[in-house]
Amino acid sequence: MKALRYFGPREIRYESMDDPTPKDRGDAIIKVEACAICGSDLHIYHGHGFSNDLGFCVGHEAVGEVVEAGSAVSQLKVGDRVMIPASVGCGACRQCLSGVVNLCEQGKAACYGLSAELQGSQAEAVRVPAADFNAVKIPEGISDEQALLLTDNLATAWFGVRNAGVMPGNSVAIVGLGPIGLMAVDSALVMGAHVVFAIDPVPERRALAEQAGAIALHPETAIEAVKEATKGRKLDCVVEAVGRDEAVDLALRLVRPRGTVSVIGVQQSRRYAFPLERFFAAGLTFRAGTCSVAEELPALFPLVQSGRLKPEKYVSHRLALSAGAEAYRLFEAREAGALKMVLTP
Amino acid sequence: MKALRYFGPREIRYESMDDPTPKDRGDAIIKVEACAICGSDLHIYHGHGFSNDLGFCVGHEAVGEVVEAGSAVSQLKVGDRVMIPASVGCGACRQCLSGVVNLCEQGKAACYGLSAELQGSQAEAVRVPAADFNAVKIPEGISDEQALLLTDNLATAWFGVRNAGVMPGNSVAIVGLGPIGLMAVDSALVMGAHVVFAIDPVPERRALAEQAGAIALHPETAIEAVKEATKGRKLDCVVEAVGRDEAVDLALRLVRPRGTVSVIGVQQSRRYAFPLERFFAAGLTFRAGTCSVAEELPALFPLVQSGRLKPEKYVSHRLALSAGAEAYRLFEAREAGALKMVLTP
Amino acid sequence: MKALRYFGPREIRYESMDDPTPKDRGDAIIKVEACAICGSDLHIYHGHGFSNDLGFCVGHEAVGEVVEAGSAVSQLKVGDRVMIPASVGCGACRQCLSGVVNLCEQGKAACYGLSAELQGSQAEAVRVPAADFNAVKIPEGISDEQALLLTDNLATAWFGVRNAGVMPGNSVAIVGLGPIGLMAVDSALVMGAHVVFAIDPVPERRALAEQAGAIALHPETAIEAVKEATKGRKLDCVVEAVGRDEAVDLALRLVRPRGTVSVIGVQQSRRYAFPLERFFAAGLTFRAGTCSVAEELPALFPLVQSGRLKPEKYVSHRLALSAGAEAYRLFEAREAGALKMVLTP
Amino acid sequence: MKALRYFGPREIRYESMDDPTPKDRGDAIIKVEACAICGSDLHIYHGHGFSNDLGFCVGHEAVGEVVEAGSAVSQLKVGDRVMIPASVGCGACRQCLSGVVNLCEQGKAACYGLSAELQGSQAEAVRVPAADFNAVKIPEGISDEQALLLTDNLATAWFGVRNAGVMPGNSVAIVGLGPIGLMAVDSALVMGAHVVFAIDPVPERRALAEQAGAIALHPETAIEAVKEATKGRKLDCVVEAVGRDEAVDLALRLVRPRGTVSVIGVQQSRRYAFPLERFFAAGLTFRAGTCSVAEELPALFPLVQSGRLKPEKYVSHRLALSAGAEAYRLFEAREAGALKMVLTP
Repeated sequence: MKALRYFGPREIRYESMDDPTPKDRGDAIIKVEACAICGSDLHIYHGHGFSNDLGFCVGHEAVGEVVEAGSAVSQLKVGDRVMIPASVGCGACRQCLSGVVNLCEQGKAACYGLSAELQGSQAEAVRVPAADFNAVKIPEGISDEQALLLTDNLATAWFGVRNAGVMPGNSVAIVGLGPIGLMAVDSALVMGAHVVFAIDPVPERRALAEQAGAIALHPETAIEAVKEATKGRKLDCVVEAVGRDEAVDLALRLVRPRGTVSVIGVQQSRRYAFPLERFFAAGLTFRAGTCSVAEELPALFPLVQSGRLKPEKYVSHRLALSAGAEAYRLFEAREAGALKMVLTP
Repeated sequence: MKALRYFGPREIRYESMDDPTPKDRGDAIIKVEACAICGSDLHIYHGHGFSNDLGFCVGHEAVGEVVEAGSAVSQLKVGDRVMIPASVGCGACRQCLSGVVNLCEQGKAACYGLSAELQGSQAEAVRVPAADFNAVKIPEGISDEQALLLTDNLATAWFGVRNAGVMPGNSVAIVGLGPIGLMAVDSALVMGAHVVFAIDPVPERRALAEQAGAIALHPETAIEAVKEATKGRKLDCVVEAVGRDEAVDLALRLVRPRGTVSVIGVQQSRRYAFPLERFFAAGLTFRAGTCSVAEELPALFPLVQSGRLKPEKYVSHRLALSAGAEAYRLFEAREAGALKMVLTP
Repeated sequence: MKALRYFGPREIRYESMDDPTPKDRGDAIIKVEACAICGSDLHIYHGHGFSNDLGFCVGHEAVGEVVEAGSAVSQLKVGDRVMIPASVGCGACRQCLSGVVNLCEQGKAACYGLSAELQGSQAEAVRVPAADFNAVKIPEGISDEQALLLTDNLATAWFGVRNAGVMPGNSVAIVGLGPIGLMAVDSALVMGAHVVFAIDPVPERRALAEQAGAIALHPETAIEAVKEATKGRKLDCVVEAVGRDEAVDLALRLVRPRGTVSVIGVQQSRRYAFPLERFFAAGLTFRAGTCSVAEELPALFPLVQSGRLKPEKYVSHRLALSAGAEAYRLFEAREAGALKMVLTP
Repeated sequence: MKALRYFGPREIRYESMDDPTPKDRGDAIIKVEACAICGSDLHIYHGHGFSNDLGFCVGHEAVGEVVEAGSAVSQLKVGDRVMIPASVGCGACRQCLSGVVNLCEQGKAACYGLSAELQGSQAEAVRVPAADFNAVKIPEGISDEQALLLTDNLATAWFGVRNAGVMPGNSVAIVGLGPIGLMAVDSALVMGAHVVFAIDPVPERRALAEQAGAIALHPETAIEAVKEATKGRKLDCVVEAVGRDEAVDLALRLVRPRGTVSVIGVQQSRRYAFPLERFFAAGLTFRAGTCSVAEELPALFPLVQSGRLKPEKYVSHRLALSAGAEAYRLFEAREAGALKMVLTP
């Protein structure tokens, strides 16, 4: 089959590779109908990937159709239309069963497309392990593209806002307005924020946040603007959706005493200079992490079905999978209004 | 001064009575600039009042200006623009301090306009006890009419929806679409309900609920409609805003297993025929009560200031206080689209 | 095999019946090593059972060894030592996976020993459907007898106290001191209650509650005693563990304004005379239902392993299964200190 | 009057100073009957105090009797027996009223004995601002010494454990076994921890923790021991009660994925090297801060009254105030089993 494969920094190529086959009787093979590029794929693209493998297929957001199901698969059958959540678990331990695959007790917590171990889904087909659990039938009233955005971005955004402890009536800031940050703006409003400050250096992204109902700010003036708007009280909850030390710094400066900062940008600092004295004096809460998609779906499915959340509005490009290399380039450069990039095999 | 006084069933008269004076050095006298009729005033109007007194002034929703402040009043001064929350407390015990005046440890929990003990505010002026606590300065960005609706109706609606345990993504029904029920529709949406079913026999009220984003239903067909819409699963949370046994029955039939029914309609049944077997089998939660306005204001002020909640849209009539008797008649009869009745002295 | 079978009111007989066999490839057959009589078995014993069947095997608390496992069973193997939680689910839907089998979306929520449909476990062997899910390997550090009490009683008690919203520092009452009520006393103390009032007419049971650290009261004097001890404030949380209208009445009289009553006694009233006016005025919460055992085990396993909870202390009789009829008689009559009755095939 | 005054590093002297007098009509003067040295007093003792003042009176834990009350004081009268919580607020703003004086909207959040601004209470008398709020009548059933320990240490310990999100059945570690750490051990057990690991290099302190029911560990072997005891899973909740970077490091290594670290040791690092990559991967929560004593008292009073918490067991020395300098020396050196030092004027 054809797939997007990683061969080194900024070397994503559309090439042939072996068709995926089941490794275990619980696996299924999914023919990919649409896949997408995630902000975290840029970590790999930039070469500081999560393994030393070369040639593996990248990507962890996809929807498609079951074309083969192992003998132990009982909840899916060939022809089912499924979404493939980015976060994978064994599907049998207590943590997976309760929806928190990150805590998989069998150590099977994983993500597609980080190494040759579990090939990615920016391809014509992908193998899904423990498929009864790791592939989810797309419910009625959810489009393919909505399902695709539910495999990672919207779930991550929603988790990040939840993790910030947003309560109805709260004031919120979202630092970073990539697709996840923009969906976090929408999520905070659905959860009842009375105001959302949306912070990013890119004017087009700020414009989208304003259309969504936020007050948009440039990072350089954000602190002053927030202090003025709140008469110095600052904000109840702040979500960092960038993955850089400066963005975490900013988040920690925007939050009011006893408030919460929630980090969903992928962090790679090993010795981040944390303002512990100030943090202690203000009595803050700091939370970080990736979501378990399965945990977020029960709330998100009905919100998307009813139209309260419309993640598909952030799709900026719909391209052929064969144009994947160019799609990565545009996305990294933020050219041509590149935001959420959807690829079709 | 002039005031609306109760002289028996359906006998509310606009008449003179003594001007209010401070009884205690913590009291203040407020010149009323606007007051309103609440659905619960109809209990008094119908004659099954909460005391045997005659001639007392009715009403418990008002805004105005401080014209006299006792020597122990330190947070207010003459000329301050204030709202007068319906729920009164001593203002000094731990429960009042934490906002829950209903649990006032000194037994001072009370409401205006139920007896001669604490005269009402449908008048040219009203005495407010423990005024530092029981009169609240109207914050910047809140209009008089919004403040008036925050003294009871919006706070009660918000509390009722909170008490139903509404979480983002939930399905909700509101039974009864008087002003409080309609504000409960808005509140449930702000809290992230993915769908709100709004139930009332009056077509005009259902139309208002639909404008607010709800799916409106007649009580007679509500159960079938909800079952069909939810494929038999029924609803996460139901709020009863009527105050009748049949409405509580309906609420208990609309809720899904392990769901919650929250009752905010004033209840007077002493031996309500409760479906305990079914309630136990479904593992339900049943909650009731009046709100403590002070407890709800920290969330509601910013939501009204930012325009996410607009309770003033439910004001149907603005009349002179002298037309109070007619206002009661219209409100009871639901004539002329009577919904929220605001009276100006 | 031999089993305890129901043939009408007070007619439980130790008799032969067919050996259980798998009906589905997900089933397992468990050789019962110990089983127990639950308070709710008395509902069947008294003849107002949950079906019209005769001759079925009763009982829903058991531990034993896997002797046969269907081809689709992957988590268990012959020889595994398992406990069989009373509450059964399909094991595949979202609700079951998250631990709440009562809400099983496939309508498979069930309990053993209520009819011929799902035979009970007061027998030499029992069939367990969806055994990967419905049979739980007994963890290291849990004795057979502890596991037996975790299949229902301790899980129900813990759930009931949780459902009452007990927070550290609260005051609590437990109405009814059968095995579940006594375990609720222990549970409330582990959750940080500063005082537990334990209420039952039987002096021996009150004595056990006092040994556990409670203040024991007779139902007839409970209200006065609680009012005096709390200077009229009454209690934060009350758990009803009886299953009678009078006990629910008592619970509703013991709770303070804004407090919670949690009902775990099996209720069969269809028109319970509920004090709605008083309930509304006090702003109470009323909750009821059976637990989902799977939901409670993650907290309970470590508490039993560490010795903070010792449910086995309430076992009063250990008898042969062949003495089952006499065990029922003693248990119903509360003779010979009958409390928790364990039977060994 | 006589008082303990700070004159530079390790220079605490028992000397005369002016008697305190009211500065405002809401102030009261309290004759101190007992006061105590807190671990955080050592920050001042070591010279890196919170101001450059010299000669001010130190200390922030005291109980005593009202000897003078300003004209605006209405809840206290001369002769009342009171405790003086360490955390001070204006007593009139919404945050103070709800118990969270740290967030005092009038910027009056303060602590005694840090500078000449608000003199300390290791003295014969102390001025209490906004005394209706900042002095608390000692309830019946609480001894003077218990009240003294409730003014800071037990409230801080309880808050720290609460802030760690401890739920019944959880596993907990307390890093640092000074008086607050030891009270945190007790608090975690009252909140239902199934196991508490108590970590400190001082053998006598570990012995006290073991008497309280904890498993005591030396910091150097703590990580290995916890991993072994939990089969690598590590702990749900960890409380840091030291105030040093190494202790925070240890806490962050002991917690399981998705667990919480709560910091109550006073922190002064401005650029703490935070392991952000690991923190993100594990999805952790990190919280810090000082408690608002008023917020914790409603739960703590009944727990002390009922004997579930006995903070007085950690008093190691009862000395005359005149021996204050020696008391500081012993406490810093941890000599003679020095733990909680109580001083009597």
